[in-house]
Amino acid sequence: MSLIVQKFGGSSVADAARVMNVARIVTDTYRAGNDVVVVVSAQGDTTDDLIDKALEINPNAAKREMDQLLTAGEQISISLLAMAIEKLGLPVISLLGWQAGFNTNSVYGAARIKNIKTNRLQAEIAKHNIVVVAGFQGINRYDDLTTLGRGGSDTSAVAIAAALHADKCQIFTDVEGVYTADPRKVPEAKKLAEITYDEMLELATLGAQVLNNRSVEMAKKYSVELEVLSSLNPVAGTIVKEKVKMEKMLIRGVTKDKDVALISVVGLEDNPGVAFKIFAKLAQKNINVDIILQSVGRNGTKDLTFTVNKENGPIAVELLEDMEIIDGKKITCATNVAKVSIVGAGMESHPGTASKMFEALYAQNINIQMISTSEIKISVIIDAEEADRAVSAVHNAFIPND
Amino acid sequence: MSLIVQKFGGSSVADAARVMNVARIVTDTYRAGNDVVVVVSAQGDTTDDLIDKALEINPNAAKREMDQLLTAGEQISISLLAMAIEKLGLPVISLLGWQAGFNTNSVYGAARIKNIKTNRLQAEIAKHNIVVVAGFQGINRYDDLTTLGRGGSDTSAVAIAAALHADKCQIFTDVEGVYTADPRKVPEAKKLAEITYDEMLELATLGAQVLNNRSVEMAKKYSVELEVLSSLNPVAGTIVKEKVKMEKMLIRGVTKDKDVALISVVGLEDNPGVAFKIFAKLAQKNINVDIILQSVGRNGTKDLTFTVNKENGPIAVELLEDMEIIDGKKITCATNVAKVSIVGAGMESHPGTASKMFEALYAQNINIQMISTSEIKISVIIDAEEADRAVSAVHNAFIPND
Repeated sequence: MSLIVQKFGGSSVADAARVMNVARIVTDTYRAGNDVVVVVSAQGDTTDDLIDKALEINPNAAKREMDQLLTAGEQISISLLAMAIEKLGLPVISLLGWQAGFNTNSVYGAARIKNIKTNRLQAEIAKHNIVVVAGFQGINRYDDLTTLGRGGSDTSAVAIAAALHADKCQIFTDVEGVYTADPRKVPEAKKLAEITYDEMLELATLGAQVLNNRSVEMAKKYSVELEVLSSLNPVAGTIVKEKVKMEKMLIRGVTKDKDVALISVVGLEDNPGVAFKIFAKLAQKNINVDIILQSVGRNGTKDLTFTVNKENGPIAVELLEDMEIIDGKKITCATNVAKVSIVGAGMESHPGTASKMFEALYAQNINIQMISTSEIKISVIIDAEEADRAVSAVHNAFIPND
Repeated sequence: MSLIVQKFGGSSVADAARVMNVARIVTDTYRAGNDVVVVVSAQGDTTDDLIDKALEINPNAAKREMDQLLTAGEQISISLLAMAIEKLGLPVISLLGWQAGFNTNSVYGAARIKNIKTNRLQAEIAKHNIVVVAGFQGINRYDDLTTLGRGGSDTSAVAIAAALHADKCQIFTDVEGVYTADPRKVPEAKKLAEITYDEMLELATLGAQVLNNRSVEMAKKYSVELEVLSSLNPVAGTIVKEKVKMEKMLIRGVTKDKDVALISVVGLEDNPGVAFKIFAKLAQKNINVDIILQSVGRNGTKDLTFTVNKENGPIAVELLEDMEIIDGKKITCATNVAKVSIVGAGMESHPGTASKMFEALYAQNINIQMISTSEIKISVIIDAEEADRAVSAVHNAFIPND
């Protein structure tokens, strides 16, 4: 007998018919001889609707009260799912985050799980109940309700799987798994049977929004085997784990991110601390910098180029213009750019990977403005208009088309 | 400085504008120098909407899960009201039933309050917070959520007032107070300045649905002074307390109840236990019997007449027809009847009250089919079509028209 944690997002429980569909998946798993803990998000647009209600009354409401409000969303979905499972004739109980033992810190709206007191969960499993747990929420030391922030239900599911030493954590979504590229854009995209945590993290960061990043980090830390699969189409999904069996594919995926602004400062004095001062200034304003390139400029100066989110582009430029060390230097900000990346744990032992990617782009006459590499990722900044064509070209160069 | 508990029903917080209106009433009370605890119900139709969602999935859902579902309703209203009060610049915190210390038994859907652990409530009041508490809900010994049943928010408010020894418990509704008759039917109806708990209880039982009966019983038990007043029109309401100052009025109100079926069994054998057997049979099927009259019939038999709710009329007749002792006896069931009652604690010391009521009906040529009296109430069963005329006639006979 295995213990399986299953997580269903808001769209999977959006209405009565979908709740019944989820109940059937859960009860099939239970009837196959498994213990099952189910984690669910709020139904469909419930969270957004509640936020709208709050904004109408007070756009600057205390975050504690926002969490008190929003946690009602999963309370509704867990009890409805429990009723659906009960209707299918199986023993079931729903638990709110605090009833399931989710203790968090007190950062309302983006709380971190400190621990899960599993007594109640284990008692209910021992009674052979299917346990339906509210994702996204917990309780702090003051007995106040907290939320983990958007996408937090994935984290809830992985945390339960880790705390209960579950055999598997299945994340049900509206896609059938993790693909080598966005299947809506690249028809040749393939579903991956397996992928490593690190690869999944790079893909998530790069915009393949299948799994919440924190949940993958936690799964890696506690060695929780994840499976990403579809709640609508019952086929095998993608397994995320530490080591995967070798496949012919060198890379796991090709992604595109158009939410990029490329900022350049030309002719900075070549003194120690210049880069530090600039990025410290940006960090103060919570502006995340992604790729950074520093190069030697003319006459003993240096040039600095980096990328930020598109919306932070103008803000970053304004901050830089106010700095003494920038005084008079030329600052440019380009927003018509995109980042195209390949991810794969195997590439570090294949020196030709980068050149193969550049060759594919060159063959399409696509100009590379910036390059960044890590052990399992290569990203290039190119013209935004050429992004889709670049993804296809790179995908076809790397992913065998069988 | 006084401690005032204020309770607002679902219609008082139905939308953003009404929530802001309630916030103004609460903050005015606080700014006048009082500590304030506010108890609110779920917004408008929220509870009914949640019940509909449940029925769509499972009409026979476990009551534990129904309570898990329904308690989300007040969770939404308390956080929104807290946000509204915060917007008006005052310190505020919302508390769910369990956070406010409401411990109940485990009768899901109709739980009884066992005690209120007031630590948190008192700590928040000591911090000068306005405390917004979810009515209608609590927690049982298993850490599961419970509801007090419909109208339970009144009970929540009175229970908090009793536990905190509040100076007053104000119940805000959509009427301005307790009237001597339904003001929509009897234009001469007067708002009462004061009324005793017992009178209020009789009026509530008789269909003047201003206050939940359990809440009045609890207010009486713990001597909590109640005030019924309007959330839309800020004028003095009706005070409910143990003893009221004498007024010229002998009676407090005239009520009408058309939800009555009058059942008669004629010619029963005059043996011991006949009445017991009949009413035990009805009690088994949870049929409440209201007025009972037993009279001597012809030839050593007896006749039994009693009233039940209209919907229970045919069921009661069917049950009786199956009984051995009824065999062959004539059973009639009239549903075109109404009960008209007068209530007043003063009437017990005024022997002429009943005859004054009967005289008023006689003057209107209204035939009385059945009479029932208690220390503070006189009820008559009359033809349903004459009910409104009867209420007016009796009202005008008793209530001085100044």
